[in-house]
This record gives sequence, C-alpha cells and structure tokens, in this order.
Amino acid sequence: MSPEEFRKHGKQVIDWIADYLASVESHPVRSPVGPGDIRRALPSHPPEHGEPFEHTLADLDRVLLPGITHWQHPRFFAYFPANASGPAILGDLLSSGLGVQGMLWATSPAATELETVVVDWLAELLDLPRRFRTDEAGGGVIQDSASSASLVALLAARQRAGAGRHTLYVSSQTHSSLERAGRIAGLGAGDVRAVEVDPDTLAMDPDRLAALLERDRADGAVPTLVCATIGTTATTAIDPVARIGEVCRQHGVWLHVDAAYAGVAAVCPELRWINDGVAAYADSYVTNPHKWLLTNFDCSVLWLADRAPLIDALSALPEYLRNPATSSGEVIDYRDWQLPLGRRFRALKLWAVLRWYGAEGLRAHIRDGIALADEFADLVAADPRFEVSDHHPFGLVCFRPRYPELSTEDANAATMALVERLNDSGELYLTHAVVGGRTVLRLAVGGPATQRRHVHQAWEAIRAAVS
Amino acid sequence: MSPEEFRKHGKQVIDWIADYLASVESHPVRSPVGPGDIRRALPSHPPEHGEPFEHTLADLDRVLLPGITHWQHPRFFAYFPANASGPAILGDLLSSGLGVQGMLWATSPAATELETVVVDWLAELLDLPRRFRTDEAGGGVIQDSASSASLVALLAARQRAGAGRHTLYVSSQTHSSLERAGRIAGLGAGDVRAVEVDPDTLAMDPDRLAALLERDRADGAVPTLVCATIGTTATTAIDPVARIGEVCRQHGVWLHVDAAYAGVAAVCPELRWINDGVAAYADSYVTNPHKWLLTNFDCSVLWLADRAPLIDALSALPEYLRNPATSSGEVIDYRDWQLPLGRRFRALKLWAVLRWYGAEGLRAHIRDGIALADEFADLVAADPRFEVSDHHPFGLVCFRPRYPELSTEDANAATMALVERLNDSGELYLTHAVVGGRTVLRLAVGGPATQRRHVHQAWEAIRAAVS
Repeated sequence: MSPEEFRKHGKQVIDWIADYLASVESHPVRSPVGPGDIRRALPSHPPEHGEPFEHTLADLDRVLLPGITHWQHPRFFAYFPANASGPAILGDLLSSGLGVQGMLWATSPAATELETVVVDWLAELLDLPRRFRTDEAGGGVIQDSASSASLVALLAARQRAGAGRHTLYVSSQTHSSLERAGRIAGLGAGDVRAVEVDPDTLAMDPDRLAALLERDRADGAVPTLVCATIGTTATTAIDPVARIGEVCRQHGVWLHVDAAYAGVAAVCPELRWINDGVAAYADSYVTNPHKWLLTNFDCSVLWLADRAPLIDALSALPEYLRNPATSSGEVIDYRDWQLPLGRRFRALKLWAVLRWYGAEGLRAHIRDGIALADEFADLVAADPRFEVSDHHPFGLVCFRPRYPELSTEDANAATMALVERLNDSGELYLTHAVVGGRTVLRLAVGGPATQRRHVHQAWEAIRAAVS
Repeated sequence: MSPEEFRKHGKQVIDWIADYLASVESHPVRSPVGPGDIRRALPSHPPEHGEPFEHTLADLDRVLLPGITHWQHPRFFAYFPANASGPAILGDLLSSGLGVQGMLWATSPAATELETVVVDWLAELLDLPRRFRTDEAGGGVIQDSASSASLVALLAARQRAGAGRHTLYVSSQTHSSLERAGRIAGLGAGDVRAVEVDPDTLAMDPDRLAALLERDRADGAVPTLVCATIGTTATTAIDPVARIGEVCRQHGVWLHVDAAYAGVAAVCPELRWINDGVAAYADSYVTNPHKWLLTNFDCSVLWLADRAPLIDALSALPEYLRNPATSSGEVIDYRDWQLPLGRRFRALKLWAVLRWYGAEGLRAHIRDGIALADEFADLVAADPRFEVSDHHPFGLVCFRPRYPELSTEDANAATMALVERLNDSGELYLTHAVVGGRTVLRLAVGGPATQRRHVHQAWEAIRAAVS
C-alpha cells in the first residue's frame, strides 16, 4: 500500500471510527451472536488475490460488528472500563505508523526516553514516592497488563530473595493473575498462600499474614512476595497497605501493590489516601491507565523502588543486541524490564493523553465517574427491594435484590438469572461477583461516553427487571 | 475528545504518517542523538492544563523525530525487518477505535472468532500440518512476541511432562528468549542445556541432543522441551527438525519450533522444505508476521498440535469471569492461551493484511526480499576483499571484510569499527554477529520500502568504507 493509498484509506478508517464512536449507543451493548456465528460468516480459506480495502471495511460492518461487544458503549458497566479516548487512539496510530522497536535504547532512543518521561510524569500526578522515579534507584515501565507486571514483580522479588522454596502471599480477593504468576514462575501449588480476609471489608488480615509468614519461615520456605490490592476486582476493597507493609518489612518480604484499576484515582488529591503505606513500604506498584485513565489497552505502568533485581532477573545480552549505548551503562534498555523482548512505542499514547487532558482533565474524568457511581448507589439504596454492598469511593457499585422470601441459594440463582436477562436485553451490560456466599451485581461506571442519563436508564432497566 | 474532534485530528495524523512514509528516506537511518538528549528536551513535569493536539504533533516533529531510528527506512538492514504496512496500520487503528477486550469469547465474540479464522488461514498459507488447525486438537493464537510464545510453549510442555526437575534444550544459536523463558519459569540455571552445533552449518547436532537427553534422563531429570530453530537470529541457520523430532519422539520430549523470522517464507511453495519435519514432529511452532509478513508489531502466531496442556497450564476462572459461553465449552477463551489476561483485537490487522495483499502479494513480497538479498550476496562475493558466510535462502546476508593482514582479534575489532562507522553515517543501519569466533556484518533485507537501488547504495557505502 503506497503512502497515497494509505492516506486515502486511512481517512476512510478515521471516518469509520468517528462515526462508530458517535453512534455506539445504537448497538446492543453485548453482542447477541452465538458460538460459531461469526466464524461461519467468514470464508474458510484465505484470499489468493488482494482485495480493495473497501471490501474489508464493508465486512467489518456486515460480518464483524454484530459480533462486537461494545466496550465503549455508554451503558457498558461490565468489568472495569477500558477507556479508549481520541488522543490515545491517535498516539497508538502514530506508534503503528512509525513502526519502531523500543527493545533497546539504541533501537530508537526517543521510544525509551519518552517512556521514562511519561512514567515519571504519571508518578508525579499520582504523588507516588520519589524512589519510584527513574533518577533515583527505581523507575517505571509500561507493560501490556497488570498480569504481566505482577509476574515481573514476582521475578524481581525472587531474584532478591535468593534460592529456596519461594512462597507468594495473596488473599481470596487478589486478582487471579497473581496465582497464575506463581504457577508460571514454577512455584509449587501449595506455595501460593491465601491469607484470610476480614469478612466485612474483604481486606487482607495483616495478623494472619504475619502468622503465615512466621510459620512458613519456620518450615524452611523463602517468603518472596506479598501482594496487597488497592481496589480489588470483585468489590474494589482496599487492603491495609501500611499494616501489611510493616509485616513485610519485619520479614524482609517484597511488597507488591496491585492498584490496577483504582490506582489512577490518585490523580485527585482527595483520593491520595488510598495509597497510604505505599510510600513507606511498597517495593513495586502497578496501575493501568488502560482501564480508567483514558488510554487504550495496552498500557499498564509498573514502578519499582529498586530496578536492580528486576534487571538481574530478566537481562540477556546476546551478541546481536550488544551496542555501544548499552555497554556505556548510560541508557535504559526496557527489554530487561519486561517478559517479551520486542516492544511497541506505547509511551506515545500515554503522552498524547496526558497532554490533551492535562492533570485537570484527568481529575475531572475520575471525579465524574465516582459521582455517577455514588448517584447510582444512592438510587439503589433508596429502593427497599435492593441492598448495596460496602461501597468504596471508586466507580464500582455492588448490589443485589434482597429476595427476602428466597433461600441464599435460590436468591443467588435469581440474581444470576437477572444478570443474564439484563444482558440479553442489549440495553446494558453488567457482571456479577460472589461476596460472602452471596451473588451480587457489579455495575462499573467510568467510560468517557457515560453520562448521568445512562446511569439512570440502567437503574430503570434493573428496577423494571425485578418487578 | 469528541468524535468530531477525533475526525479532525485523526486526519491530521493520517496525513502525518503518509507524509512520513513518503519521506522516510530523507532521515538518517539510525538516530544520532546521545543518551539523555530527548529526555532533556521534554518538560520535567506533566501539564496541568490540556493542550491542543497540534502541540503534540509539533513536538513529535521537533523533539521526538530526531530520536527515532527509522525501522521503515529502505536502508534499515539491522535486525530482522519489522514490516509496517498500510493495511496493518489501519487494522490496528480499527482495533484501537473499537477498544474491545478479547480476553474471553463472551467479551467480544468477533475478536475471538476472527482470530481463529486468520490463524487457520495462515496455517493453510504456510502449509502447516492439519493438526495445528483449531477444528482438530490443536490451534493457533496471536501472541505479542516469539519470546512470549516460546515461554507459553514451555509452560504447556511442563504441564504435559508432569512433576520433576525440568530440563530445556537449546543450542548456542537459539534465540536468547528461550534461556530467559527457562529462567522465568523457574528452571535451574543448569537445567537449560546447550546442545552443540555443527561448526560449519551452526545447526543443532541431533546426536549430541540424544546423548544429552539420555544422560539427563538417567540423572533423574524430566526432559521437557527441545527448541529447534528455522532461521536463527545470528545467521538464519536451520536446525535439522526431522532428525531432532525423531530424537524428541524417542524420548517423549516436546518439540518447539522457533521460526520467528523465517517461517513466513513458507507462503512460497518453493520454500516449504524449510519446514521439513514440522508436520511429523512439532508440538508447537511460532512465526512472526510482525517481522517479514507486512503486519505491524505485535503479531506473533503460535500453533500447538494439542491445545489441552496449554489450557491446563494457564487457565484460571475466577467468579467474575464466569459466563454461560465459557461454561458451555463451545467457545475458545484465548486468555487461557497466553501470559496476560487482557488482549487487544490483534486479528484485525492480520486480517487486513491477508485481504489487501492476498496470498500472491505475500509471496511476491517474500520473493522480492530474497532476490535482493541474493543480489547483495553476489555483489559481496564478487569482491575479493570480502567473504560471504554460509548463505541461507532468506533475506539476511552475513559477510565480513577479509583483513588478511590482521589477526582474528584485530580483524574483529576492525569489523566492529566498520559497523559503527557505517551506522554513524546515517546512510544505512547494520548489526553484527559472531560466527565461529569471527565478527560478521548482518545485512537484513525485507522492508517493504527497500528497492534494488537501496541495496546497491548500501554496498557502495560499505565498499567505500573499507577502501
């Protein structure tokens, strides 16, 4: 495709996306197709001859669009939001157009140095500790996801811990990727230890953690990493990071803080308390601009207080990657900070977002989402047929119909049937969680297109569905 | 950013990229900046207020572009090519615009089903065995890189192998990501075993492999995975896959084939012999459309002959991901096929590429690259001051000045100085490798913008530099 053909088709695609974003509300939120429907509508064999680009765009509309669940729909409330904003899309487009590899500083210095700048900027915006900055012993790096970031943190922690039977500490509310990271890293199944949570707050119990660490140490294990969560996936619960950190310090264990969803809320000064304990204790911290901070997937930022064990754990320098800049030690080679070798120029999209919105724009976005979630929680709480679960100051509301006449088991089944009925309607999309044996609905606000009326429409649909 | 603002700025970005691609030849190939130059040119603090998008575009030109090494430059011959083509850029742009998560079938059925279709299409285009297709026991999946794909293959192999001290078999020519995968997965340092290579062909010696496997098995190890390479990074050497596969079968070891760079060449029927042994023996196979097949990074395709151990190794199903489609068993959830949980809709770009070029366009692209590499190798071979290393039928030429008057050590230093001098010129960009103790230059052809004249210009520059 020549540059001039690219110019022509590129503008068609921009128009397609602008039209899509302007009309996304007209689609059912959740795709109504069944297994195999899309596959059967596509040719079984690849084309022998090239086709005009317009054919591909036409099939996008005709064949693929019915199979899309619209994450940018203003009534998409399932999972945490995956904010795709204009500047992020365009930053990512520039990355594709440049087509550079950022694996080494030498393979495109701007890709590395812009990344260093934007992760330092974000650390400042979130008021994260100075030791997370690249001009101190630590540093930040963009990963594809918090799953990978947590695995990378575990590898660094293992490097620091030295040899032995490594153990990893999570809670029942920790994201499943931590258990999976332990599995990937070759920890024994029994060496991923689940610390009990407070049954009311669902927060990790630091005393239980301390007891477990003592017992494991006595049994000859090498306690390696504790993961505390700020904003759990199921209910956005907040682990007591400072108390957990104190326990970690006493036992010399790496404290990793998973703030994948909620961490970005700290752009707002009034929410900085969520990070209490991070400055004093955290060895690593991850939050995802690709969830709630208007930056397209993938953009998960991991910071470390000390980058040395990470680089020791992951560096490899075969001959064909040797170069004077790397040998000088004056540059960062981010390939040593991540699982894959190759890497996209992902800093461009975060840069474009931070410049377009500015700190004040990001704060406004977070505050809007929280205000809408609070308003929704108030609507639910005002209806005696419903119950709101312990509510945290983020964009997620967990709630359930009371079903006073039903057993817990039957109430849970009725709640699941309600979720399916609502999702089948195409009017909105929710997920569920199980909290203390009870199934609850999860409604996550925070998409940039979501306005007050969409939240009210959702509530009307939910009310009507239980009538 | 509203849809209308996006429309406006999107077209500015498309124009920027079209202009960039049309003029990329006017830039020095390798960025001339020094460590810290770009970082110092950027503000130390993030902006408080949002800025017009034009400011970001202006800084892209003014601040970042001097720090870019131009991978799409027609005289970029360093590393393997990272083909960024128009349809791939636009497919990726559509993925950003839709902003959907493909972690589960249910979270956007089209993202999963289109991926299944395009990886099956690509298996057909490369004439890979039928058992790699999704309608048999195997299946393909798009990964971010061959590094991650190889780690995923190792995890599946370990799952199949069962408990014990796992050992991994590579050669001195295997990509460094395999050793790194072993490290990540928690294998002991001594459990990544380097099999000796034939000193002439640099191919793994199957007899040495068999001896090592026997000894390790006798020592109580659980030989887990052997990695054979089709097209090594340093010199594009080809391991004898069929003979290695026979050894693997005898010992019940997983055979992973790393064809990251060269595998896509099998779109040409006359090159299908490079995969000899794959159909009979390979348990997994990876090749990267993001290198030589006109698809932007990241797009690495991993196929497995049996998907079951992979899913067993990586599946996790927390409550909030439970859904009727997953429970039915009728759908693929690709989150179980990769390291992270989240995933972009990457199939769109591969789909756009396969449709725009068609099989015949892809074949023409590969053949063009090989013809140019052959022509360059002939030019070098015809000059008595140079020596071409064992040449393989791909886009890479390894060669060196003879320096008959110098010791090997001094000749190597002179070759390295030559590489730096050439790269400093900005006229072309090369890398080096060390083959049998001798430093050689690597010139990799295959970028879509590279024409005959660029290869001749490179040769003139190299000749002049040794005069």
